[in-house]
Amino acid sequence: MTRLQATYQIESPVGVARAAEVIAGEQSTGTFVRLASETDDLRARSAARVEAVEVTGASDHPALPCRLKAARYEQGRITLSWPVDTFGPSLPNILATVAGNLFELAEVSAIRLLSLDIPDSIAAACPGPQFGVAGTRALAGVDAGPMIGTIVKPSVGLSAAQTATLAGDLARAGIDFIKDDELQGNGPACPLPDRARLVMQALDAAAQATGRKAMYASNITDEITQMWRHLELLERLGATCAMVSLNSIGLAGLRAVRDRSPLPIHAHRNGWGLMSRSPHIGIAYPAMQKLWRLAGADHLHVNGLASKFTEPDAVVIEAARSVQAPVSGSHAHAALPVFSSGQTPWQVGPTLAALGNDDALICAGGGIMSHPGGPAAGITAFRQAAVAQAAGVDVRTHAADHPELASALDAFQGAVSRS
Amino acid sequence: MTRLQATYQIESPVGVARAAEVIAGEQSTGTFVRLASETDDLRARSAARVEAVEVTGASDHPALPCRLKAARYEQGRITLSWPVDTFGPSLPNILATVAGNLFELAEVSAIRLLSLDIPDSIAAACPGPQFGVAGTRALAGVDAGPMIGTIVKPSVGLSAAQTATLAGDLARAGIDFIKDDELQGNGPACPLPDRARLVMQALDAAAQATGRKAMYASNITDEITQMWRHLELLERLGATCAMVSLNSIGLAGLRAVRDRSPLPIHAHRNGWGLMSRSPHIGIAYPAMQKLWRLAGADHLHVNGLASKFTEPDAVVIEAARSVQAPVSGSHAHAALPVFSSGQTPWQVGPTLAALGNDDALICAGGGIMSHPGGPAAGITAFRQAAVAQAAGVDVRTHAADHPELASALDAFQGAVSRS
Repeated sequence: MTRLQATYQIESPVGVARAAEVIAGEQSTGTFVRLASETDDLRARSAARVEAVEVTGASDHPALPCRLKAARYEQGRITLSWPVDTFGPSLPNILATVAGNLFELAEVSAIRLLSLDIPDSIAAACPGPQFGVAGTRALAGVDAGPMIGTIVKPSVGLSAAQTATLAGDLARAGIDFIKDDELQGNGPACPLPDRARLVMQALDAAAQATGRKAMYASNITDEITQMWRHLELLERLGATCAMVSLNSIGLAGLRAVRDRSPLPIHAHRNGWGLMSRSPHIGIAYPAMQKLWRLAGADHLHVNGLASKFTEPDAVVIEAARSVQAPVSGSHAHAALPVFSSGQTPWQVGPTLAALGNDDALICAGGGIMSHPGGPAAGITAFRQAAVAQAAGVDVRTHAADHPELASALDAFQGAVSRS
Repeated sequence: MTRLQATYQIESPVGVARAAEVIAGEQSTGTFVRLASETDDLRARSAARVEAVEVTGASDHPALPCRLKAARYEQGRITLSWPVDTFGPSLPNILATVAGNLFELAEVSAIRLLSLDIPDSIAAACPGPQFGVAGTRALAGVDAGPMIGTIVKPSVGLSAAQTATLAGDLARAGIDFIKDDELQGNGPACPLPDRARLVMQALDAAAQATGRKAMYASNITDEITQMWRHLELLERLGATCAMVSLNSIGLAGLRAVRDRSPLPIHAHRNGWGLMSRSPHIGIAYPAMQKLWRLAGADHLHVNGLASKFTEPDAVVIEAARSVQAPVSGSHAHAALPVFSSGQTPWQVGPTLAALGNDDALICAGGGIMSHPGGPAAGITAFRQAAVAQAAGVDVRTHAADHPELASALDAFQGAVSRS
């Protein structure tokens, strides 16, 4: 495949087929008046092509405000393709092509980018995840089973020393992974360098006791040159992970981090709701995560089952599977799905069952910290839930002779109403 | 003001006031279980605060899919504030705070960020536009009146040499500003270095004849280190502007460009429709453009009146005014609004009248290239329309003894149905 393909779900006042032509024109050679210089040869060589059009329905009103009025707004799916020669493997320019001006066209009253088919030539020219699942397991010292993680909470307000104390306690309690909150960056109240230094001291001390160093994702989200300085510092401190807020640093920012990162990149998607919550406009996660993986994300957030967020469980699982699927025909570039938000041992079994494997990082804040027996019991309960799932035993049955699990299932009963 | 303020329009299944508390918690200290370490002192120091709640209405159904069900979805506006100490002047971390996880909360069935109040301390610590209006006018050699620009079209498909020939012709025809299309980056079919080199040769040659060098915004959108190389090249070639796709390079990418740019940054917002077209989710332009200006954008796209896009004219004008308004109480950091898309001399008067001044860049593709008398007549017609507006003369009256304008008004009659 030498063309990049994108599939959209659209609604249009001018009909799905006509809208497909307009989008193809807008996103390649077109302007509102056809110019003399736009020859047939040029169009054949450079224009976007309509590969498929499928009409699925119609509405008598537009899904989104739309300047063009019609009696009928036709709905359907379209697939467009572009020659790779126009943009090469430049991810920022690919994004401008598949997710640029098209969202504003009056010829569509709804448009969502559903999927991207990435040519191997692009996948080959992009770095992809540097560590992925295997590299993360090696650094975290977790050979098998899901990795159990937590988030430092309160999200903001703790000093560097308080954060380090908490991290040390969690490490001694047996956690695999800890992360800063996405709201904890490099502010004056808790600068990243201070926090990272004290946290790594605490983790090293804990490792003396446990024989294993918990992975800690310091949130390095910041301006580009600062992120590079943060990465150098983390490496010097012996850190094993760096976290970024994808929507804050942008696709080019992610690649800049990847190019200089000696550590796995824990990619947080806060702000994703803006890009995907509306059924009428946006980008579906299976499309966007491919670009993030190509740029180098190792861990990708996907929310969690029965979370505090509004996303349906099916979308969560589709997202998690998508980050494990090959990015192109011949390139895996697989990432590690990160489940989080309102997670408790109740969700572990259903999550792993739906995923179909245990290459997952399951993060819980309150679900670990607020275990009646304390954080160590909280972590144990998560592991027990994973063991039950692997053995094909119902989690309640398994709890009968696993008191930490029993206690968690009891404490967090409300958390699972949807799973 | 030592706190950052954000105002949102929301709809909520739990009521506007309760939703405000939930968002404030989620976006600062909170987790779904209140933790022992979240003391009252910590909350007082670090928590987001609900500054205002205004209920404006209600609906019996949720505007967006929402996990929480209610008989009544209350609508209104809320204002939240955060202590600056949490994030400092780090724009990527500010974005994660005001436009992060909140979009996914089940406690809101609609949420749009309407405005941001930026503390002076943040504005003072950010670079802001390096050239702005005055610097751009100086480099383009346009002392007064709106600057008239155009876009190289077809967007893709022309070789570097063809692009240069077109740019030279337009420069000799008297254009103030030319830009690459946002789809023309640095692909194998027309690499930026080749294109920029030939374009600058053509512009220098044209300047020998006209006595003035047209400003050309080369689209440097790419990975960070490549953009820096492109900037170095442009400077060596004597270029006077660089263009980026904001949503492709991200907020951190924009700042990285600003930090090393010897040229004004022409900021293209393609993809903006995704962020703002739905009335139920997203970010209003007056909020987002402040962050882009703080990061260093000199020129900011705002669409145009009666454009091919779906945005209503009132939103276009609000956007244009917002980029000229002070970014904070004591810091102007003003940018140049760029009007484009389907622009003809018909729109010039209404645009400048609504803006209230002529510090604007008006770009037209077909509206110049397809003028019956050719591009020079097309440019002249735009200038004549601006002169008529400045003199308070109706554009049709002015056309009576200005044949280029008359010809344009005739040719593009259909273009102005909305203005």
